[in-house]
Amino acid sequence: MISNKMVGLVQNSSIIRAMFEEGKRLADIYGAENVYDFSLGNPSVEPPKEIREEILNIINMEDANLVHGYMSNSGYQDVRTTIADSLNKRFQTSFTGENIIMTVGAAGGLNVILKTLLNPGDEVIVFSPFFGEYRNYVDNFDGKLVVVPPDINDFQPDLAEFETRVTEKTKAVIVNTPNNPTGVVYSETTIKGLADVLNRKQKEFGISIYLISDEPYRELVYDSIEVPYLTKYYNNTIVGYSFSKSLSLPGERIGYLVIPNEVDDYTNVVGAANVANRILGFVNAPSLMQRVVARCLDAEVDIASYNRNRELLYYSLREYGYTCIKPEGAFYLFVKALEEDDKAFAAAAKKHNILIVPGSSFGCPGYCRIAYCVAYETIKRSLPGFEKLAKEYSTADRS
Amino acid sequence: MISNKMVGLVQNSSIIRAMFEEGKRLADIYGAENVYDFSLGNPSVEPPKEIREEILNIINMEDANLVHGYMSNSGYQDVRTTIADSLNKRFQTSFTGENIIMTVGAAGGLNVILKTLLNPGDEVIVFSPFFGEYRNYVDNFDGKLVVVPPDINDFQPDLAEFETRVTEKTKAVIVNTPNNPTGVVYSETTIKGLADVLNRKQKEFGISIYLISDEPYRELVYDSIEVPYLTKYYNNTIVGYSFSKSLSLPGERIGYLVIPNEVDDYTNVVGAANVANRILGFVNAPSLMQRVVARCLDAEVDIASYNRNRELLYYSLREYGYTCIKPEGAFYLFVKALEEDDKAFAAAAKKHNILIVPGSSFGCPGYCRIAYCVAYETIKRSLPGFEKLAKEYSTADRS
Repeated sequence: MISNKMVGLVQNSSIIRAMFEEGKRLADIYGAENVYDFSLGNPSVEPPKEIREEILNIINMEDANLVHGYMSNSGYQDVRTTIADSLNKRFQTSFTGENIIMTVGAAGGLNVILKTLLNPGDEVIVFSPFFGEYRNYVDNFDGKLVVVPPDINDFQPDLAEFETRVTEKTKAVIVNTPNNPTGVVYSETTIKGLADVLNRKQKEFGISIYLISDEPYRELVYDSIEVPYLTKYYNNTIVGYSFSKSLSLPGERIGYLVIPNEVDDYTNVVGAANVANRILGFVNAPSLMQRVVARCLDAEVDIASYNRNRELLYYSLREYGYTCIKPEGAFYLFVKALEEDDKAFAAAAKKHNILIVPGSSFGCPGYCRIAYCVAYETIKRSLPGFEKLAKEYSTADRS
Repeated sequence: MISNKMVGLVQNSSIIRAMFEEGKRLADIYGAENVYDFSLGNPSVEPPKEIREEILNIINMEDANLVHGYMSNSGYQDVRTTIADSLNKRFQTSFTGENIIMTVGAAGGLNVILKTLLNPGDEVIVFSPFFGEYRNYVDNFDGKLVVVPPDINDFQPDLAEFETRVTEKTKAVIVNTPNNPTGVVYSETTIKGLADVLNRKQKEFGISIYLISDEPYRELVYDSIEVPYLTKYYNNTIVGYSFSKSLSLPGERIGYLVIPNEVDDYTNVVGAANVANRILGFVNAPSLMQRVVARCLDAEVDIASYNRNRELLYYSLREYGYTCIKPEGAFYLFVKALEEDDKAFAAAAKKHNILIVPGSSFGCPGYCRIAYCVAYETIKRSLPGFEKLAKEYSTADRS
């Protein structure tokens, strides 16, 4: 009796559930400490201490009807202004509170902006590998997902392949940098090239193409690498931000959209996004958390501990003979599967109690994602398993 | 450049914004205390003290990664079990945590269940007057809204009219009791009659018709009136609940769906609702607030103060010659406009600095909604304006 669209999604979800159950089964047999679950992007480090402090400050000092009450669908005016000011200071932009719409996480923000923009049949381009949920978000509004194949040399977007896929039906392009699942940060050269293609194609077809930058991992970068702020490179850029990873608050569902004055049809886009936030059933981003994050914009989680995980995992895998790019951000490592079939490879890893996600889930078969947002000890204990796994394949090759 | 669907919605939203701006303009001219804004359903009473206490308890005592972290898309298992137990105690039902899905308010819950059920073109029946957002929620999934005209004698659903509108395309019926905008509680007789029609039509067409009960006002009732718990009257009932009004937390976006074991295709419906919660971009209900409401299920807002407003407003309006039903729940009073055109009547009221919403917004022209969730003093000060307004019309009649 459920809708036709949901039938396939429920089946797919049962497979994920089965994986989860399998992890629990393994933990029951071998003990939880001997099962190495790298399947989930759930922050392992604590929220910064400022979160607790500011919740207490707000609850003790501010008026309860203000803290828990309705406000504009776009969020509290003071919160939006504070966020705009903070962005301007960090990125030399010139936003005001009117450019900010508070959202139920970045997932909420992406759905709001896609609802705002898409007519049925409109095309949305993504670069493989990409966060699998984009497919569902685009399908929510009957858009058509167009996938650009990966450049496996460095996992930067392949701009030549991209250019061939832009058509007069292209309404939006979604990028995600630092990237889930590769950990790659798109370089300034890439961004400039991407903007160049988009500007040319907008002119050629006489259309507006919006670049949607999904940025839940902006603050999680290593070796002081810079993540270009995309609104400065391309006028029709809309940013979707989330505090889930930057402040370890994934359950709270708090983020925002940035819709700069420069985007085509600005007044309607920002007006429609405000309405979409309401009619999709979000209504507004959770009120207490809006006030909390506005007071914690300079707070940081313990990135050093993700970095420690990254170093250990990356150098160990390289030593065992695996092929992978050193992640520059986020908390994922994308390793080449040791056989063509990434699902078979993930199944082989499971025999060593190692749980990883096949690249097929990110539109990029032949690889697997390792989420290293786990305890350092978990990575350490998993290494002998990774080593044995590599040996199994090298022995098989030689036989 | 925005989507075609959004164009009309943005225009409509500009009209509401203009009303809001007009209220501000009046306040600037006459002083805020001399403008009587009855247009918004925003709780005026404080959250119960337990909310503050339990936030502090949770923040001080529980693990931060648990409190702010990801959990199952359907919510924390312990929270869901606590809610099921509380419902069972209050309504002699037999739910478990598996029947509960935590949602981003009732608005989120309704979108989740409509995404779960609707194929394009499926019909969803509502009873006039109804909460205007239902039209948008149904349209989000390309469903077709079918409106049953009101029975203006008592504003109970007109079951004869209802029966003629059920077709083989009917997938769901939405009811809202206590009702926004009338304040009427659907009687047990009405509910039994509704269930009877639904059961007969299900058999006649060989289909499943889901009854969706939108219950943000369940706890706001007066004179100890009972609000029937609909799952006990009709097997295919799904409840959407919100804590927005019962605990004065509208900004926090916290509620739940109840999907009983008895509904047709239960396993798929509950599985699909879990997936829909994720892919619509909610992901999960805000985590801290899930834990807070589970500890405050027996807490109450100050309903006595809404009741004081109700009594003063109702008896005064009756004295001035207005026609209206005494509300039994919620914080709305639905008054008959003193001319045919409810928009013109609302405009006439505005000349007395009284802001009310035309019934057309609820699919019921000829009436206006007065939201009396305001300070008692506001109602008191507005009464001379209501009296003059009535006199204007009675004089006009005689001329």
